Amino acid sequence: MSVNLKEISRQEIEEMSKIYRLNLVNSLSGIKPANLIGTISNERKTNLAIISSVIHLSSSPAVLGFMLRPTSVPRHSYRNIHETKEFSINMVADNFTDKAHYTSAKFDSSESEFEKCGLTEQFYKDFKAPCVKESPIKILMKYEEEYHIQLSNTILMVGSVQAVHLPDVAVDESGIIDMEKLEVACISGLNTYYKVNKTASYPYARVGQFPENEIKNTGI
Amino acid sequence: MSVNLKEISRQEIEEMSKIYRLNLVNSLSGIKPANLIGTISNERKTNLAIISSVIHLSSSPAVLGFMLRPTSVPRHSYRNIHETKEFSINMVADNFTDKAHYTSAKFDSSESEFEKCGLTEQFYKDFKAPCVKESPIKILMKYEEEYHIQLSNTILMVGSVQAVHLPDVAVDESGIIDMEKLEVACISGLNTYYKVNKTASYPYARVGQFPENEIKNTGI
Repeated sequence: MSVNLKEISRQEIEEMSKIYRLNLVNSLSGIKPANLIGTISNERKTNLAIISSVIHLSSSPAVLGFMLRPTSVPRHSYRNIHETKEFSINMVADNFTDKAHYTSAKFDSSESEFEKCGLTEQFYKDFKAPCVKESPIKILMKYEEEYHIQLSNTILMVGSVQAVHLPDVAVDESGIIDMEKLEVACISGLNTYYKVNKTASYPYARVGQFPENEIKNTGI
Repeated sequence: MSVNLKEISRQEIEEMSKIYRLNLVNSLSGIKPANLIGTISNERKTNLAIISSVIHLSSSPAVLGFMLRPTSVPRHSYRNIHETKEFSINMVADNFTDKAHYTSAKFDSSESEFEKCGLTEQFYKDFKAPCVKESPIKILMKYEEEYHIQLSNTILMVGSVQAVHLPDVAVDESGIIDMEKLEVACISGLNTYYKVNKTASYPYARVGQFPENEIKNTGI
């Protein structure tokens, strides 16, 4: 691609219109995962919120986190998580990005995004928070801790994995999940959704061994 | 897809072999961005580390973060960031995932991943940390703060955006960056790379207006 490179300074970012800045800066981190956070209040009112900030924190113990902005739509999620100490993480697939996106509308706390957005509640034994039946991967999470990030005025919510529900055909013999097979969606910025195609699988990188693409090698 | 759903319990995760657990749990958060963190020491030795945990924190101020594990390869990055208070975030494109992946090999701190992995240092005026010339988006970052996440024993590094370098054709009139046009790569798990194709763009979600896909509507 023949390109003109441009520099955008910090000052130019500060002087942008709010919408332009939101779109641009939200795109800078690259491709983001698309997940729905499922919660329930003590009054058993369910809530669902699309979140593009779920992040891997550790595998032993299995810990995931996600960011919340205190003033944004997921405030119902925040309150529910504090009430029940539970939440679910549900991966968004390409065939329901419209319903998933709609959960970001400012529904009243008396309304459930499941019903309003056309998604199906799924409950698992001994777990209060609802999962999304349509999601290829559903993770039952226990709330563990949170951190207030000063500079961005956001909260990192940290939870431990209690159980995972997923199609067994999507997991290979070494534990790797095939995101193309599951038709997983991902997000850039605030409102653009992408699908993914596998291009490369490399071995654990070792000094002196330049990575060979195992997908191309095996002709898969 | 006809599927058999399986449940994996917390106990089963704990009892997995280390490699299987690493692969599985690192896949659970979904699709992750592929970025290279560029740093330099006070002795002007450059370092480059692939990181799949860059996360958007806020747009005003423009703040991004990423996770580091104190004991992992990017310890050189951590030391350099503390020495210079600067780092760069460089988006990985589909045509150099092999070189990007190779930066995760345990090179000695006296060796630069730029040279060893075949990537090109690019320096910008008034900024010490190196960028990756091959990257479609280069972000100059100032180190601001960090948080030690207890449960996962990881560190959230937080920085503010000082400048962005990118091709102007990739940014539309509303500030949205086209990741397909830039042929951006993303990661799942530890070693699988994907390319992305745009499937949907929805308007800001409002109650009562189910999202219409603007890509399909306009026939793009």
